[in-house]
Amino acid sequence: MDKKQLQFFKSLQIKKYRTLHQSFPVEGAKSVLELLTSDFIVETVLATPAFLEQHVALLQNFDCQPVTEAELSQAGAFETNNAALALARMKDNDFQQAEESEMVLVLDNLRDPGNLGTILRIADWYGVSKVICSEESVDFYNPKVIAASMGSFTRVKTYYASLPAYFRQIKPQPVFGAMLNGENVHQTRFSETGYLVLGNESRGISTEVQPFLTQKITIPRFGGAESLNAAIAAAILCDNWRRG
Amino acid sequence: MDKKQLQFFKSLQIKKYRTLHQSFPVEGAKSVLELLTSDFIVETVLATPAFLEQHVALLQNFDCQPVTEAELSQAGAFETNNAALALARMKDNDFQQAEESEMVLVLDNLRDPGNLGTILRIADWYGVSKVICSEESVDFYNPKVIAASMGSFTRVKTYYASLPAYFRQIKPQPVFGAMLNGENVHQTRFSETGYLVLGNESRGISTEVQPFLTQKITIPRFGGAESLNAAIAAAILCDNWRRG
Repeated sequence: MDKKQLQFFKSLQIKKYRTLHQSFPVEGAKSVLELLTSDFIVETVLATPAFLEQHVALLQNFDCQPVTEAELSQAGAFETNNAALALARMKDNDFQQAEESEMVLVLDNLRDPGNLGTILRIADWYGVSKVICSEESVDFYNPKVIAASMGSFTRVKTYYASLPAYFRQIKPQPVFGAMLNGENVHQTRFSETGYLVLGNESRGISTEVQPFLTQKITIPRFGGAESLNAAIAAAILCDNWRRG
Repeated sequence: MDKKQLQFFKSLQIKKYRTLHQSFPVEGAKSVLELLTSDFIVETVLATPAFLEQHVALLQNFDCQPVTEAELSQAGAFETNNAALALARMKDNDFQQAEESEMVLVLDNLRDPGNLGTILRIADWYGVSKVICSEESVDFYNPKVIAASMGSFTRVKTYYASLPAYFRQIKPQPVFGAMLNGENVHQTRFSETGYLVLGNESRGISTEVQPFLTQKITIPRFGGAESLNAAIAAAILCDNWRRG
């Protein structure tokens, strides 16, 4: 790998350059393997000779380049994910309104990439296939988001939208929102379809989005902790939602 | 802060030296404030003049030393937690058998410090005041455990024990265990008291501990993700348990 190529890969850790090139890196054997069988367009695969050999059939229609582990850890954001790194084409933010038959997760100004990645994995586990993020939320293509999602970024469609504008034009649907003083979620009767809104890590759901909530819900607290991490709260709420 | 003192603080990031000195560091304003009002013995508090001034009443009976933010980030494990750092006395592993009236979380070979810290925070939220870890689990006093617990390390008593030896001598109690092929936890009728066992991040509950489970439970999956993170699973199970 020459210096120019290395610089190009490293530049894609920054949102500005991902947007410019419409390309994003995916690191680590598991994530790359999930990417190859997804509907993303894969531009190139850098991998160790051992990885290329082990997955020769799967890789036959892709542009592959053998590299060393040292080159991979230089080119990527993570030192330890060093069997493979792929570049894929970013998708258009071709937002489609949620169908009336589905559950959609809405993230209002979520900022931590690890949280977004973990929430994608949780959404994927609970069969939620669409996530709508407010425009100022952390970038889906951030390498930490991709890594934390453990491959789920390939299955959960994620869109960015102005949430007030979005909610203004939807058909009437239940919109559940995680708030501090809502109904105890253990007593909530969830509908099978609709929206579940989760707010910012420290400030919760914004005042602009709150008017669109049809039901405020809260995870009951039994002990001394002041709060739960945003991804932990997302998991508990999705579990309660799926229980009905 | 002189070089010798700095070296001493840095050494406490390593378990061997914590065990030798029976002392552990707590970093960051929130964690230090929770420590000061806990039942831990606080040996010394290093803090910025601003922190010392802001909390002068609370700090009056403690040994305090003013330091700069730069010194704090040098002395600690985290560069950003730089308002205060305290040293506290490790507690004896004075294991007390769980009372029959309580819920106890059991961690079988949990290895990731972030997971243990997050699980302590979850336990604290759900009013679980005792956690029993298998002897090879990650160290409770690891700075990443303390940081991730967000102060909950002061409220959740954590013991280390040989789990088979422990389970052999308890009175008959329900022992729920998170397994891949257990009963759907949405259908489980939990007892109010007993044990909930969570396994290792990649291998689950060990074959030595499995015979002591009285009920195997599983978080139902609705989508494509292969697994959930250990702390996420702990949160979902605690929530189901508290629902009854």
